Amino acid sequence: MNKKYVIAIDLGGTNLKVALLDPAYNIKDKEVLSTRSFMEKDDLIHGIVYSVNRFIKYNNLGKAQISGVGLGLPGPVDAKAGIVHFFPNIPGWKEVKLRDILKKELGLPVFIDNDAKLMTLAEYKLGAAKGLYNVLCMTLGTGIGGGIILNGKLYRGFNNAAGEVGHLPINEKGAYCNCGSIGCLEAYVGNRRIINQAKKVFKRTITLEELSALAAKHNQKALSVWHNVGAHLGFALAGVINLLNLDAIVLGGGVANAGSPLFDSIKETLRKQAMSVQFKRVRIIKAKLGNEAGLIGAAIMVREGI
Amino acid sequence: MNKKYVIAIDLGGTNLKVALLDPAYNIKDKEVLSTRSFMEKDDLIHGIVYSVNRFIKYNNLGKAQISGVGLGLPGPVDAKAGIVHFFPNIPGWKEVKLRDILKKELGLPVFIDNDAKLMTLAEYKLGAAKGLYNVLCMTLGTGIGGGIILNGKLYRGFNNAAGEVGHLPINEKGAYCNCGSIGCLEAYVGNRRIINQAKKVFKRTITLEELSALAAKHNQKALSVWHNVGAHLGFALAGVINLLNLDAIVLGGGVANAGSPLFDSIKETLRKQAMSVQFKRVRIIKAKLGNEAGLIGAAIMVREGI
Repeated sequence: MNKKYVIAIDLGGTNLKVALLDPAYNIKDKEVLSTRSFMEKDDLIHGIVYSVNRFIKYNNLGKAQISGVGLGLPGPVDAKAGIVHFFPNIPGWKEVKLRDILKKELGLPVFIDNDAKLMTLAEYKLGAAKGLYNVLCMTLGTGIGGGIILNGKLYRGFNNAAGEVGHLPINEKGAYCNCGSIGCLEAYVGNRRIINQAKKVFKRTITLEELSALAAKHNQKALSVWHNVGAHLGFALAGVINLLNLDAIVLGGGVANAGSPLFDSIKETLRKQAMSVQFKRVRIIKAKLGNEAGLIGAAIMVREGI
Repeated sequence: MNKKYVIAIDLGGTNLKVALLDPAYNIKDKEVLSTRSFMEKDDLIHGIVYSVNRFIKYNNLGKAQISGVGLGLPGPVDAKAGIVHFFPNIPGWKEVKLRDILKKELGLPVFIDNDAKLMTLAEYKLGAAKGLYNVLCMTLGTGIGGGIILNGKLYRGFNNAAGEVGHLPINEKGAYCNCGSIGCLEAYVGNRRIINQAKKVFKRTITLEELSALAAKHNQKALSVWHNVGAHLGFALAGVINLLNLDAIVLGGGVANAGSPLFDSIKETLRKQAMSVQFKRVRIIKAKLGNEAGLIGAAIMVREGI
């Protein structure tokens, strides 16, 4: 194992995180910028270059001590060719050769991949899915992302586009999803839908954090909202485990903080809806690495390849 | 490649097929028995032993010229341990060590696996999925079976139970399925459901064959039935390709004979419901090996292992 550092970048719809990780994947330095400050493509690229160079300088490192730069990106990415196809929530990006652009600007090896895949990689190598073979990792946020480990390896599909668990359809005459299709899981359990449902139940605006806190204190209204979210999730995941006979499903993202009211409801639905052999095998686990999973996954990509 | 023959057995809910295959997987001899004549477990086992011995004798072969016996079975099987967990449609089978029983009775190597997995293996090695990497093979019959090739290998899941595409749920308040769950794909496109729907439309009893023949002659009622079946299938398969970014979906079984009215409807629904990157990649193909796929897959298992 080399003893070099890695610079990891996690670009989200809201935040751009940049971090310096040591060889044991400890985060030694980190900054969180607002993605909105970089809505122009060139601004974002220059922002990244500036940030990386600053990290190296102020941590008294030379480029020789950096293995490379790894980026997790919020959209479909050709990891092999280093190309961003597009970002659903950041305009102006289309078939951008981001890896080569950054490599030239930085003079360092650069690796890019989809953020959900890197989160999955991190949970598999160092987190909740460690030691398991067949696992779906989900991020429950504004959007629902996912990555799949099969036979102990990240499964990509032909276009590196596998894992879109948020777009499993669960009702033929269901709600419209942001993706333009009908009845996708995300249209039922994306953050905004949960907040809207809670608003109806409580007759006031309520955050996910408050909703989780209230449920922890056995508030019946809050419990009913999480029960409902879990029922939708369990219904969709029953299909996934019937299809893939998984060892575990790892749930991350803000919604997963709802804890047992959510997890119990998922398991209850799976018990009713999934086939018995598959249900007996699968565990539903909370992600371990929290908000840092993307950064850690990006660092693993640089150090180990994937 | 050895030049020995293989005896392949395909046990279905209706028929028990036994065949002798040459080294090039040509079927040299075959018999089709009624599964109903062997409803007792011991009768079925003795029926198989009797049939295999007769095949060897009347084809003027010795046991030294037989590589082994491969069985495709209609239910969950532990292929590695050689154990039948149970058969959903044949009573009296529970945790039966079928491989060892037959091996002892026959004095030949015996291999067993689930029938949908063997059909998938056959289509992958010699049929419609040859040369592809990530493929779902489905059998559309009374039940809906499936097998998955991922990264060029049969994907089994932990309990060898992966591939149950018939039990992808597509409506949270949907029809009851035979498996006891709600809204599974099979509850919409299993043979009996299609025949029931056709009966309502035509106001008389109609077979699947007639329904396909009428659709081929542009009968509007028949076309509407197949359009409807294709819409349900496309909806469920959109989830599968969003999740797995497949190269192809291969459709076999009697229903697949409906041809373009069915396939066009599936593709139309996929175009609307699946994500664009995944949709552009996937092909929807008819299975090539027809009713013999199970026997050929069983023979491949014996000769090549899986």
